[in-house]
Amino acid sequence: MSGSVTIAGLGPGAEALVTPEVSAALAEATDVVGYIPYVARVAARPGLTLHPSDNRVELDRSRHALEMASEGRRVVVVSSGDPGVFAMASAVFEAVEAGPDAWRDLDIRVLPGITAMLAAAARAGAPLGHDFCAINLSDNLKPWALIEKRLRLAVEADFAMAFYNPRSKSRPEGFVRTLDILKDACGDARPVIFARAVSTPDEALRVVPLPDCRPEMADMRTVVIVGSATTRVIARDGAPFVYTPRSVAP
Amino acid sequence: MSGSVTIAGLGPGAEALVTPEVSAALAEATDVVGYIPYVARVAARPGLTLHPSDNRVELDRSRHALEMASEGRRVVVVSSGDPGVFAMASAVFEAVEAGPDAWRDLDIRVLPGITAMLAAAARAGAPLGHDFCAINLSDNLKPWALIEKRLRLAVEADFAMAFYNPRSKSRPEGFVRTLDILKDACGDARPVIFARAVSTPDEALRVVPLPDCRPEMADMRTVVIVGSATTRVIARDGAPFVYTPRSVAP
Repeated sequence: MSGSVTIAGLGPGAEALVTPEVSAALAEATDVVGYIPYVARVAARPGLTLHPSDNRVELDRSRHALEMASEGRRVVVVSSGDPGVFAMASAVFEAVEAGPDAWRDLDIRVLPGITAMLAAAARAGAPLGHDFCAINLSDNLKPWALIEKRLRLAVEADFAMAFYNPRSKSRPEGFVRTLDILKDACGDARPVIFARAVSTPDEALRVVPLPDCRPEMADMRTVVIVGSATTRVIARDGAPFVYTPRSVAP
Repeated sequence: MSGSVTIAGLGPGAEALVTPEVSAALAEATDVVGYIPYVARVAARPGLTLHPSDNRVELDRSRHALEMASEGRRVVVVSSGDPGVFAMASAVFEAVEAGPDAWRDLDIRVLPGITAMLAAAARAGAPLGHDFCAINLSDNLKPWALIEKRLRLAVEADFAMAFYNPRSKSRPEGFVRTLDILKDACGDARPVIFARAVSTPDEALRVVPLPDCRPEMADMRTVVIVGSATTRVIARDGAPFVYTPRSVAP
């Protein structure tokens, strides 16, 4: 039997957001590798070996998956959300490019999932209904100056923005700077959505005007969505609807 | 029984990419409204009324859905892909904001789906694995000058880019200009992915270096993904893998 590596997105948390394609891949896997809390979402069964690993070992994990596939195993690499958005798919292809030539001929597939920003946007309304960008605010893997440059250009382009990994305990200062830059560059009270752990029991959503945003409103389980200059808030009993219109007047 | 409007994403085409949450909503609906080809994806059954409508009547369709919900019907508005990305969710909220106050208190939910750019990215590898933006190239609802400004700023920010609605028969010139701008502003042979009708029987994928791109490589069923300056191509037998590394060197 020939081996394979399937890089699958588990969605933001709820079982109801896992695609049938991903469920089928997991049902046929011999091995599942991934970050501990994501592997914990896969049910154990006879014939399936789970290989949970810690954070920040994405390349080691990728090589392990590729080695097992070379030996004929059907390996599924799990990510939360979509594996192609700030997740495991890039790490696996980095390992392929740097690895033995034979890895290029392996059966490697990526199965998309519901990424965090789209689950968050859906809960709030349609804040990403017009042109938008997605930025990873972690400066573990890129210089802070590049993040700052992208933030300023995104404001100039009037994109709505979705931020992944806005704030961790080890680097709380980046999101402080991000909010300072946005408050300075936007100069209005556009809505900001803090969406934590959407579709899990820990889900929490708040909509805050930009001038009132504070860094501690976000943590590593939060996706932050910043509206564009045209984004609207519809007040109502309960949480407001936030949406960005499809049109921009000439 | 109280009415509801559920705005649901059917994903890019394959049944295996429809979330269980969306399938459950369709199973409980009394009415489904949407653009003709999307409503055609919903199976008829007793107790379900299908309301297909033509393109470019998004606000009329939204008002119809909200009116039916006001009368106690369980209405599902279907979009392909994700309803929050250049699709029906914004139109429904526009109708809510402009409509009677009572519409604000309706049970309105958005159910995310696999959006076209993420299905396309997964097929190609992981081209959106680092910071990226999504731009609708249709100038039906915004001035062309804004599109051009966003393209230039996105290049300056070195975002990977995903383009929706790149080219239609009625306005073929926009994508000509888009390619001219990119060839001028990027000045390199970065990979461009033309992903047509991913996950359907009409699926076609090609990876073309930017200088070799021609406008007729795209149509309205194509999502176009343009790599950033760091995007890599892994040559192999068959289609290459395209991915954007997670890291940017200082």
